[in-house]
Formats: sequence, C-alpha cells, structure tokens
Amino acid sequence: MLAAALRDGTAHRRASFEVFARRLPFGRRYGVVAGTARFLSALAEFRFDDAALASLNFLEPETLRWLADYEFRGDIDGYPEGELYFPDSPVLSIHGTFAECVILETLVLSIFNHDTAIASAAARMVSAAGGRPLIEMGSRRTHEQAAVASARAAYLAGFTGTSNLEAQRSFGVPALGTSAHAFTLVHTAATGPDEAAAFRAQVDALGVGTTLLVDTYDITQGVANAIAMAGPELGAVRIDSGDLGVMARQVRDQLDGLGATGTRIVVSGDLDEYSIAGLAAAPVDVYGVGTSVVTGSGAPTASMVYKLVAVDGMPVAKRSSHKESHGGHKAAMRLAKASGTIVEEVVYPADSVPADEGRVLTVPLVRSGSVVDDSSLADARARVAAGLHSLPWDGLKLSRGEPAIPTRLVGA
Amino acid sequence: MLAAALRDGTAHRRASFEVFARRLPFGRRYGVVAGTARFLSALAEFRFDDAALASLNFLEPETLRWLADYEFRGDIDGYPEGELYFPDSPVLSIHGTFAECVILETLVLSIFNHDTAIASAAARMVSAAGGRPLIEMGSRRTHEQAAVASARAAYLAGFTGTSNLEAQRSFGVPALGTSAHAFTLVHTAATGPDEAAAFRAQVDALGVGTTLLVDTYDITQGVANAIAMAGPELGAVRIDSGDLGVMARQVRDQLDGLGATGTRIVVSGDLDEYSIAGLAAAPVDVYGVGTSVVTGSGAPTASMVYKLVAVDGMPVAKRSSHKESHGGHKAAMRLAKASGTIVEEVVYPADSVPADEGRVLTVPLVRSGSVVDDSSLADARARVAAGLHSLPWDGLKLSRGEPAIPTRLVGA
Repeated sequence: MLAAALRDGTAHRRASFEVFARRLPFGRRYGVVAGTARFLSALAEFRFDDAALASLNFLEPETLRWLADYEFRGDIDGYPEGELYFPDSPVLSIHGTFAECVILETLVLSIFNHDTAIASAAARMVSAAGGRPLIEMGSRRTHEQAAVASARAAYLAGFTGTSNLEAQRSFGVPALGTSAHAFTLVHTAATGPDEAAAFRAQVDALGVGTTLLVDTYDITQGVANAIAMAGPELGAVRIDSGDLGVMARQVRDQLDGLGATGTRIVVSGDLDEYSIAGLAAAPVDVYGVGTSVVTGSGAPTASMVYKLVAVDGMPVAKRSSHKESHGGHKAAMRLAKASGTIVEEVVYPADSVPADEGRVLTVPLVRSGSVVDDSSLADARARVAAGLHSLPWDGLKLSRGEPAIPTRLVGA
Repeated sequence: MLAAALRDGTAHRRASFEVFARRLPFGRRYGVVAGTARFLSALAEFRFDDAALASLNFLEPETLRWLADYEFRGDIDGYPEGELYFPDSPVLSIHGTFAECVILETLVLSIFNHDTAIASAAARMVSAAGGRPLIEMGSRRTHEQAAVASARAAYLAGFTGTSNLEAQRSFGVPALGTSAHAFTLVHTAATGPDEAAAFRAQVDALGVGTTLLVDTYDITQGVANAIAMAGPELGAVRIDSGDLGVMARQVRDQLDGLGATGTRIVVSGDLDEYSIAGLAAAPVDVYGVGTSVVTGSGAPTASMVYKLVAVDGMPVAKRSSHKESHGGHKAAMRLAKASGTIVEEVVYPADSVPADEGRVLTVPLVRSGSVVDDSSLADARARVAAGLHSLPWDGLKLSRGEPAIPTRLVGA
C-alpha cells in the first residue's frame, strides 16, 4: 500500500483516520478506553532503523528512503485514557498524510484492542466487588508482554495491585505478593508434608502481616497451622479452591474463634465478575483474579477498527454490506442529567459542536508529532471511577443487554 | 517465597516441576504444544541485571545476591514443539533446585499458555480448511508483542503465512500482504470514489500477481474494475464482507466470464474454524483469518499449570478439593494402531518405562542449563501435520466432545 501510494502521490494527501468500535462485546453495557499512554509512548519510538529496513529489502528504494525518514508529524485527538466509550465513540482520531497515518494501524489497534479489552472486563469486576480490593494475578495465563500491559489495564480500571513485578517497574502498579502451593509442598519431609514449616519460614521472612495459603492439604488444619505459626495478628489467609463462599464463612468462623479477628481472607481460583458478585455476602476481604481478567472475561479483544474517514477534507466511507462506517473527522460529547447520570453520547463533525449542554470528550493528545497530553495513570483510574459512578443503574448490570446510553450521530 | 526458601534452606532442595493441562478447553479434542523454542530462547536471557535488581530493593541482600548470580543450571525434558497433547500430558518437566525452578513459573506458563492456545485453535482451522491455504492477519486484534508470537504459532500449526512483518524478521514466517479499504478510499477524487485508480496504482507498484480488495463499494463493479486494470492475469481478489459463500460463487462466475479463470479468491472477515468449514463447497482459494486465531477461537489461554511434583526424589501433590495433581517426575508415550491411528496416551514415572509398544514423546531439551534441542520451526510444522494425520476421525470433529484419545496414568 505504502509503495503504491508513494508512486501515485496519494501518500501525501491529508488524511484522518478514526478508531472506534461498531459494537461492544456481546451484551456489554459500556467499555473503558485504555492504551492511550502506551500508544503515545510507542508512537515516539515508531521508527525504522537499519536492521528493520534490511528486513524490508523487498521494497523499492523510494519506499525504504521514506521509511528511514519516518516519524509521525501529525495530530492526534481522542478520549482521555480511562474514559468510558460506547458503540461508534470516536476514541481516537489521527491526522496527517495518508502514508504517515496508514502505517500506524497495527500499532494503534494492537494496543487499544488489547488494553481496552482488559480494562473493560476489569471494570466490571471492580464494580462487582463493591469496594473490596482486587489483585490481578493472571500473568501466567497470557503472553509474557501482554501480562505487563494487562496488569496496568486492570489497575487503571480500579484493581488494587498486581502480582506482576515488571508492571510495577514499568508503570508503577503496586506489586502485591502471595505464595504458591509449591512453597508449601517443598516443605515435605521424609515423614510427610510439613505445612507448619512452610508457614513458619514465610512468617520468618516476611513477618506476621503476610498472606498464608491454607488450602494445599486440609483447609481447617491449614488455618490452625497458620495461626499457630503466625499468631492472631496474621495478615491474611488465602483460599484457592473449593466452594469459596462456604469456605470463606467456615474460615472466618475458625479465625474469629482463634482470636484472629483482624486476619483477612483472600480468595482466588477462576474468579470472574459473576463469581465475584456471587461472593458479595461472603466474608471475603480481597479477591485474587487471574485468567478471566487477562483474557477480557470472554472478550479478549475490543474489536476496535481503524478507518480512513476523511481525505483532503472530504468525508469518505466504505459502502460494502454490514460494515458501513461514517465518514468525516468527528468529536464527541456526553450528555448527563443534573444528578450526573449520563444519558447520551453525541458524535458530531469536529468543526461543528452541537448546542447541547454536554461534556466534550475529545481532547488533543498530539500536535505536530509532539505529545501534548500529560494525563497520568492515576488520572485514568480516577476517570474510570467517575465513569462507573455516572452510569445509569442498568449500565452496571452484569447481564447481557444494550449499551448503557445510546450514541447519536449528528450529521455534518 | 524465594526469600523464605533461601532462609530455611528449602531453596536448595532438588525439585521437579511439571507443566500440564488438567483439561482441554471446552470440548476440544486435542491440543498442539507450542512455545518450546520461544521458552528456551527466553530462558537463556532470564537474568537479573542491575536495573532489575534495583527495582527489587524490597528484598533482603541475600536474596538479591542470589538473583544477581541466577542462571538456570538444571535439566528440562518435554514434548517436542508441535506435538499433540491431551489432558495430563506432561508437556514439560523442569528439574533443578527449588529456587531456580520456582522463579521460572510465570515465564514458562505465559509462553506455553499463549502459544499453545493459538496453535491449538489454528490447527483446527487448518484441518477445517482441507488443504486450502490460510493467512494469519489478526495482529491488530491482540497485544503488539503477542501478535508476533501468534503469527509464529499459527504458522507452526499449518498456516501458510502472516501479515505480520516482525514475525518474518524474528521467526522466518513467510509474510503475505494485502491492502486495506483505506487504500481504495484514499483514491477519492473531488468527483467521488475512484476505485479503478486505486487498483491501477497497486498493480503498477506490485504487478498483476497482486491481490485486489474488491468490496469497498460494490463487489460486482469492484471485480470489473479489478480485471479492467490488471487484466485476466490478476493474481487474486479479496472479499472481506457479505455472505462469503454467496459472494465467492458470484465472483468466481464473474471472473471466469471475464476470462480470469486463474485469478484466485481470498476471503476474510471474522472467519473461524466453523465458518471456514462452512465454506468448503464454495470456490474459495485462500482464507484470511484474524481475530479468531489470535484469540484462540474462544480459548485464549491453554490453562496449563506449573506444579511441583517431586522434592528430593519424593513425589508431592496438592490435596485440596478438585485440584489434585499427580506427584512424581513423569514421561509419556503414545500408543497407535498399525495404521498409525493413535489410541492412547500413557503417562508413567520417568524411571519406569512401561512395556507397551509406543512412541516415547518426552525428549531432552536442556541439560545442565544448556539447550540440547535443535528442533526447528519447520520440524514443528511437520509434527503438527503428522499429529493431525494420526488422530482418529472423531478427533478431527469441530464439535464439542471428549479428548480424541484417553490418557492413562501409570502408577510408580
């Protein structure tokens, strides 16, 4: 495409591309925009060095020269990271020459489709947890680099922390640890299992504030061993198997009976938003969530697309069946009642802001190739929390349904 | 865990960990092991440099010194990459000190769970395509680094190539291109769309062997424009929307009527193994597969686990409910009929090979920290093809069912 566009001159036409999702994954009621900061940081590094150019030796010299000089010099607008989005929300708009924009498609979509999928699933879990903390511990169930981005996206959506140390180093996500069954099992003596020895070692190394994993053998004995080794000041116990609601009640009673009334109960083991919600009445203090959050809980990609919407100021759109896109460079605002509850997403041509009283969602992110957005991960977390708070009640339902608010496309 | 184990000496016990899946994802009949070569290459780079150690400053000095000296010095056995696997197949066994093995868990599982999920889904698509080529084009629908690993895993499973150039550079996966609707749309003139100009530009740059995307506006007109610009020697047309079976028949007739009897038809657009199978009778020459393959077609992770199975030669196993694991260092063989059709997976204690006549699956991969496996990606592809060929008929069904062959665990 690039070679052909450079040959016939279309490479240099002014283009606007838009990132949006035609729909939310099966019956979801809202999505959470995530990936913006990762994308802006990747954009700055999106260059073709000699090694990259050498691997593209099937291209003609003019195309290689163009790539060697490449850096993005255009403008980008979009929703701030952490903002809610709905079908047809113009999450990102990229403006520049056709060539400089078109080669960003895979980078843009990979980051937004991944991070948004994880944050959108994580937000449902945060909402289902009703204020109880969640720890992301799914690194083992996704690609090793996706794991780091997943930890960031889950934290952005309201998780308390992650077991992924690299996410702490790269993004400042709080790292929270726990131990594995292997640690208990390695304390096997010739005479058999020795769970108490494992607990003693962990308390010696980490203090009584640590979290002991009590379900390697028998949970009741595990809790007894834990308190015997750590005393009633033990920080927490973790249960990773069995009927977690039943187990949590039983363990709570046992802990209270042992005087460990302040010892918290962490549960984990194939939790998703539905099972988290199902544990609302159980004496659970912390949820550890793995597979479901890093795989987007059934929706591992956000199905965002990257579409050319304007060429030299003219709106353009594909017309093939069932995949219409709406041409023109667009922006969006969100309307709300006086109470703050949102009622409608209004998408309009960027140069004609409607008269409605609403909050404009689109902000400048890049100008002439330079990032002008200084939104932090903490800002994004605050936006998700505010967004969830602004949803109508129906919007927080976990069941399948319609988007929480309709999107209205205003013509040019 | 590491700090506590170093303190009480268990860090230095001889340990064996095993990677296996308790079950195949919902009703799958086989899985394809993938990730071995990526893991062995990551293992060689798994070190803690000064920057990494600085980010771990919450650890005590002894633990940091241990990490600074870390390199894996143990042994690894496992199934060769591309081998089929079933529930409880001991896909990988890692032997060394408890400490040097336990810290590999996330690295091992991230790579195997991701790559195996993609390869296992891709193999079903290859099987459904019945010999027609498949192109992986899902990079935009997964994390930017996972995209590269996905392209490799899909190729390993029998795909013909990928649209991901980095996968070509990193792993030698053949790169196969196509163009996007944006390329046609950018050829919009003041007088309106000019699809013919887009096709002419692409043919000028890439020759008549190229693939023209004909569904941006009207498919019939698109095909007419394509042949008008490229002539009847045009390599291929791509259809990305509509009822692909109906469209393919209509386009085939039109192409044949125009004398373009050798022009191939590439179809794409939310294809998965079921829709690929549904197109078996349609005149389709190549399938382009995106979202479904990079997300594992409903099973984005292989749910493999990493369990401590032996300590100082003693088998160990967790006993909490519903998550029993089977202790001891194990190996496996696969039994087959004289025809080559496989009938049973036999998992046995590594030091007591059963008398059954079967093919031993477990091979040495690492000895004293050095990789001893020289299996190539081409070898892995050949193994997948042979594996699919060896399945009983029922094993190739796309519908949900039992594993194609049972796994028999032989006691010590």
